[in-house]
Order: sequence, then structure tokens, then C-alpha cells
Amino acid sequence: VTGGAAAEPEAEAALDRLHPADAAEALAELAPDAAIARLLSLALRPQALIFGYLEPGQQVALAEAMPRAALARLVSAMSSDERADLVRRLDAQARAALLPALAQAERDDIARLIAYPEGTAGSVMSSEYASLPPDISVAAAIARLREIAPDSETIYDAYVVDEDRRLIGVVSLRDLILAPETARVGDIMVTDVIAAHALDPREEVARTLSDYDLLALPLLDAEGRLVGILTADDAMDVAEEEATRNILKGSAVTEGPGGEGLVASLRSASVFLIYRMRIFWLVGLVFGNIFSGLGIARFEEVIEANIALVFFLPLLIASGGNAGAQSATLVVRGMATGDVEPSDWLVLVAREVVIAGLLGLTMAVAVSAIGLARGGPGIALVVALAMTAIVLVGALIGLSLPFLLQRLGLDPATASGPLVTSIADVIGVLIYLGIASRLLSIET
Amino acid sequence: VTGGAAAEPEAEAALDRLHPADAAEALAELAPDAAIARLLSLALRPQALIFGYLEPGQQVALAEAMPRAALARLVSAMSSDERADLVRRLDAQARAALLPALAQAERDDIARLIAYPEGTAGSVMSSEYASLPPDISVAAAIARLREIAPDSETIYDAYVVDEDRRLIGVVSLRDLILAPETARVGDIMVTDVIAAHALDPREEVARTLSDYDLLALPLLDAEGRLVGILTADDAMDVAEEEATRNILKGSAVTEGPGGEGLVASLRSASVFLIYRMRIFWLVGLVFGNIFSGLGIARFEEVIEANIALVFFLPLLIASGGNAGAQSATLVVRGMATGDVEPSDWLVLVAREVVIAGLLGLTMAVAVSAIGLARGGPGIALVVALAMTAIVLVGALIGLSLPFLLQRLGLDPATASGPLVTSIADVIGVLIYLGIASRLLSIET
Repeated sequence: VTGGAAAEPEAEAALDRLHPADAAEALAELAPDAAIARLLSLALRPQALIFGYLEPGQQVALAEAMPRAALARLVSAMSSDERADLVRRLDAQARAALLPALAQAERDDIARLIAYPEGTAGSVMSSEYASLPPDISVAAAIARLREIAPDSETIYDAYVVDEDRRLIGVVSLRDLILAPETARVGDIMVTDVIAAHALDPREEVARTLSDYDLLALPLLDAEGRLVGILTADDAMDVAEEEATRNILKGSAVTEGPGGEGLVASLRSASVFLIYRMRIFWLVGLVFGNIFSGLGIARFEEVIEANIALVFFLPLLIASGGNAGAQSATLVVRGMATGDVEPSDWLVLVAREVVIAGLLGLTMAVAVSAIGLARGGPGIALVVALAMTAIVLVGALIGLSLPFLLQRLGLDPATASGPLVTSIADVIGVLIYLGIASRLLSIET
Repeated sequence: VTGGAAAEPEAEAALDRLHPADAAEALAELAPDAAIARLLSLALRPQALIFGYLEPGQQVALAEAMPRAALARLVSAMSSDERADLVRRLDAQARAALLPALAQAERDDIARLIAYPEGTAGSVMSSEYASLPPDISVAAAIARLREIAPDSETIYDAYVVDEDRRLIGVVSLRDLILAPETARVGDIMVTDVIAAHALDPREEVARTLSDYDLLALPLLDAEGRLVGILTADDAMDVAEEEATRNILKGSAVTEGPGGEGLVASLRSASVFLIYRMRIFWLVGLVFGNIFSGLGIARFEEVIEANIALVFFLPLLIASGGNAGAQSATLVVRGMATGDVEPSDWLVLVAREVVIAGLLGLTMAVAVSAIGLARGGPGIALVVALAMTAIVLVGALIGLSLPFLLQRLGLDPATASGPLVTSIADVIGVLIYLGIASRLLSIET
């Protein structure tokens, strides 16, 4: 049990010896002032590496509390994509304080990267890639990569560009090492390069990178000029955030203002952020469910005459919602992985009629026995018919809604959530009580 | 419009010139016989590459329809992890036909890989990695990597092993290229290697790879010997499958027998597979909702005396389920990304009381106005009190259930789905009608 003062230099040295990801985790446990002191005591390169592994919210908190000159040094040592992300997240005041303290080239690089709108591949790309002219030798190319190595995100793929920086090929370090030293880069490069546009949606570009098993994907501007790369580790972060986004969409939670909820920590985010992420759908669904209530009110006499109907109400409503949520989830997931295309709708509807028909019949059998026991043959018939119809209709709504949303230019993932469940709920009430009032009216 | 016979050689040549991922997509559109003919007309290396990009189901279908000798040639040219995956998926008959046609070394390699249980990192690892002894020079190391390059999944990280194949360091091709040619590998290697155990859960190992931004992660046996690597592209596939698994869990869909549903195509999977993936939860929830029905039956007199209560039933039930689903999703997601630990439960409960209290009060205000309009002050009071209590209780159940499941050794993601909604539904009915019978009994 050594004293704090004596232990500190040791702990600092330890921070330096940890992997940057682990060092960042250790820093995150400290109070901001202590974390800043600890961070700034390190050399610039580990400083920037560790800072890059901090959560976005922690980066902003530390950056805004740090002396301006120290922040400028740190920012110039960061990788170009992480630097741009940080500046994008700073408030106007902090940004205005930081930018003049940077070198002109760095200011320009940041300005170029943050110009790409949120959600595009350009907004997460790195401008630190290796590029080569086509007319140098393999030996010269390796020598050049050796020079730029410390600065570029990956030198394992070098992009071959012409004098207008238009992308004409790619050559991997592996190919360079395997080729004769005197060969021309232009002769051994692969000309059929898989590339994307910097304005393409980032999750699409991340998926392309994953589909083709690439380490990095070059991004081009409208003129075919190379402007940056998306690296595999950034693509994994994009995929991770996309997964969170879709999971939230499926569970009556919004992303919060500016997508904050996507990266928020449940333990440390403010109570009001979590409140704001949750209240929208909760209140929205209250109003949605008023329609179920109105449906019920319309059939109040049937219910009063056959109070046993209420027993089956939660069960039938939930079944339609569940069947709809299943269909929507399967379609949305299929769209995300590229398995389902807009033109598949009619085929899927035909298959769904068979599948949901079978599901509905199975459930009708399960539930009609209970109907018989609790309400007699009349109720049993109503409940069985209603179950089949509700499951079928709910499933078809869940299947079709994602296609409709996509057609309207909205995110189909919204359909896998509470939206489809609510719609199916309302329709379930109307089908159930509609059938009941038709078949049971004679008996009252 | 050229004739089929004349066009065919051209199309075959084209398949060869496409990226293997695109060629695989083109093959998948053909009938099995045509696809096999087209595939076998190619050279062995593109054959194996393209085959590796086919969906698992398509691989099995083609493998089982292919001449045995052609299949053996193809399989020996495949990468070790893809080969093991394929053999794992073949039925016993096809496996028995294939294995004797392979060389002893390949049989041993396959047997070693398929011995790792499904779900472990070992089951998706590759045995084609580059390894180096510590006592050779950088120049000799580069020469050796050049030799083994065509055979190994990635040469960008070479693993340094001692004479017992125990992992003692890692050196990147980048470091080798930057180092003086005469330096010893053992002197420039990084000794603090991030590695995992081959029996660790694959999604954990994939997350480690992503957290540390690695291209590949070495996997060790119990004695610390290097047995394989997990590459970044395989880690992305694992993460993708894990995302699908969690999305299905949240939507009343099971994975299907043997996890088939995880990779099934919604368009082409058999109707019965989709039926089996969906029927379990649908019928299960019917029985779950019987408890809601029984709750209602217990309070039948209160309902008969105050039929306006039924109007609010779907709304209140749904609110508890929605609030619970929100909490469960946030906790499950937090657990998956490492933000939430078992020890956080008490802190989160305290925060949730505040958050869900605020949510419940907001919704009580929204709904009491409707209560006043439709049923008078008595109903309004009942509905407002019930809403606050139901949202609070539902949220606390949703928050705690994932912790409980984790404690019991079950997958917490199960809680983000229909399970928590059903439990919250039943409790919602009891709270609502319990409050109603307490407060309204005087008026009847």
C-alpha cells in the first residue's frame, strides 16, 4: 500500500505499457482532470492512440476541459478520421478555440472531411492512405511505402492513381513483395478495383467491404478521384452502430437527439437523454392504442352480452402483433443482408399466405379448446376464426410495411418495431369483435 | 442476341474475370447442374475462391451433386476454415464419400478443425497463418513470408513461436519492411500479443478483434500453443450472424433447428423451416396470455359494472410491455457491447426508478385526459394510477430479467423479446383491474 504520490509515476508508466484500448478503458474510470493530467504526461503518439480509443462522449468531455495548446498538439497527432469525428462533435465555442491553433494543412483536411454529411461513407473515411503512380518500379514502390508507413492507416493496399488522382488500380503489399523488384507497378496492379462513392451511405459501403473481404475500400468523388478510404476496423464500428440502430428501432426506443443514444452508456448517460429516447414511442403508442379502445367502444354491447369475450382479448391482440412483428423482422433483416429485394414482395406475399395460414390454424386449434372450456361452442368458433384471420392479416401487414416504407424513402427497419405491432393490435380488435358481433348477435 | 452455344464460352470467361464474390452471386442464379458445369470449367484456384463465397446452403447442395473426384480437388484448394465448415455441414454419406479422396494432411487438418464445438472461436478459425522462429533475420523472415504467401490467409501479421509452437510474439509485415534487414525477428517482435483461447465463444473473440482493431487474432490451445487465427473478415461474419441472432431473439422468432434460420434465405428457405422458426413463440405466447385472461376473469364483475374499463385495457397492457421491452433492450445491448456489467444492477435499478417514474407520469397525464372524457373522474384516476404503476413495474422487470437470465447461465438476449412483454402484460392486467376494483367498488 504505497502513497498516492509515489504510486503515480509507476501507474503512468503502466498506462504507457498497456495496449491503447486498455489504457483508454483505465483512463475512462478517472475524473476528467485526473484523466487529462495522466494523458498529457505521455508522449504525443501514445496520447493520440489512447485518446482515439475513448468513447466519443469522453473525447468531447476531455477535449473541452483541456488546455488549448495541448489539445491542438493532440489533435494534430490523431488519425485523420478520428480527428474529424472529434471536431464534428465539439460545440461551436470549442471548435472556434481549437481550429486557429492548428496548421493550415490540418485545418483543410478537417474541413474537407467534416463537409461530408453524417451517415455518408465520407463522414467516417480516413484520408491517410498509401497511393502510388503507375510508372515506378516495385522496388521504388516498396521504398515509398516504407517512407509513408508511419502516416497512413494501412499500407497493405496501395492505390494507384493517375496525374489527376483518378483511381486506376490497386496493388497489395503482398503482391509487391511477391513481384520481381524491377516490374512496373502499372503492370502488376489489379485494375478492376472495388470502390465506392464517398457520398454513398456508410452502412452500404461497410457491407461492400465485408462482402468482398477487403482490408480497406477506396472512396471516390463524383469525378472518380480518390478522396479517402474506409478501413475494415471503421467498417466494423459502422456495422456495430447500425446493429444498435436496428435493435433500438425494433424496441420502441429512438436514437435520441443527434443519434446520441447510439453511443450513450446506460450507466452514465443523463437520465433525461434516456427519458427522451423512450418517451416518444411510449406516448405515441398510447395514442395508437386509443384506436383499439375506440374499436372496443363500438362493440360495447356485444362485450356486455358476452363478457367471456374479454378473456380472449389480450391473447388475440398479442397474437396478431407477434405474427406481424415476426414477418417484419424477417423482411427487414433480409433487406439489410441483401437477401430481399423490392421485386420480391409478391413472391413473399404468396409464401406468407401459406406460412401464416398454417401458423394461424395451429394457433386456432390451441385456442379453441380454451374457448370451448370457458365460453361454449359459440365463443370457441369465434375465437378460432378470429385467431386465423388475425394472424394472417397481421403477418401480411408486417411483411408489406417494410416494402411500403422503403418505397416512400423511409427506413424499413422502423416497421420491425412498435409500429407494426400497434397497427396489428388495432386491426386485431376490429376483426375479433367484428366476427363476434356477426356470429353472436343472434344469441343475445 | 447470340445463340446459347456460342455465348457460353464467353460467359465462362466472364465468370473468371469477375470478383469471386460477384461470380458466386451469378452462379447462385443457375440450376445446380449448370452451376457445377460452369464452376468445374474454371481453373482450380478461382473455382475454390468462388465456391468459398457461396452461401452455406448452396455449397452443400453443389458439393452433394458434384462428382467425387472433382469435389476432392475443389476441397483441397479451399481455405482451411471454409473447408472445415463445408465438411461440418455435409451429411454423413457425403462426408464418408469425400474424406477418403483427400490427402492425409488435409484429412487431419479438417478433423482438427471440426473437433472444435459449434460456437467456439476454434470452429471458425483458419489454420493458414504465417509463423516465424524468433532467431532469424528480417531479410530471412521476408523471404520466408514470400514463400508461404499463397497458402496463408494473411501474411500481414506473422506469429513468432518457440520450438513447442508456443506463441511468444507477433511481427507485422509493416514492421519487417521498416526494420533493418539484419535485425533479428525476436528483437523487433511485439511480445505483448493479444490472443484468445480457441475454445472461447466466437462472438467474444470477434469483439476482442474489433475492440483492438486487429486484422487477425491468434488462437491458442490450453498449453499456449498457436493453433489457428481468426481473421477480420471471419470476425465480421460472426458479428453479422450474432446481430441476426439477437434481432431474431427480440422478435418472437427462434433460430430454427441447428441454427438454420440464421443463414436461411426468406425467399428460398422451405415454408416448413420458416413455420418452425415462428410457431414456438406464437403458441407459447398464447399460453402466456391465458394468464392475462385469467386475471381478467377474476375481475369480471368490476368490468361488467364499469364497461368503460375495457376501452383502456389494450392501451395499459401495451404500455407496460413497451416500457419493459425498452429497458430490456437497452440492458441487453449494453451487456453485448460491454457497457453493462452484472454489478451494475443496483445502480441501474435506482436510475430506472427515476426514469420510468418520469415516463409513467408523462403517460398518466396523457391518458387521464382521455379517461376523464370517456369515463368520468373515477375512471380517470384509476387509469392514471394504473399507468404510472404499470410503466414503473414493467420497466423494472425488463431491466432485471436480463441480469436474472445471465445469472442462471441463460442468454440475456431472450429477455429483449416476447418474454418480457408477456410477463409485463399479465402484471399490467392485474395492476389495472386490481386498482379498479379497489377504487371503483364503492360506486357499484
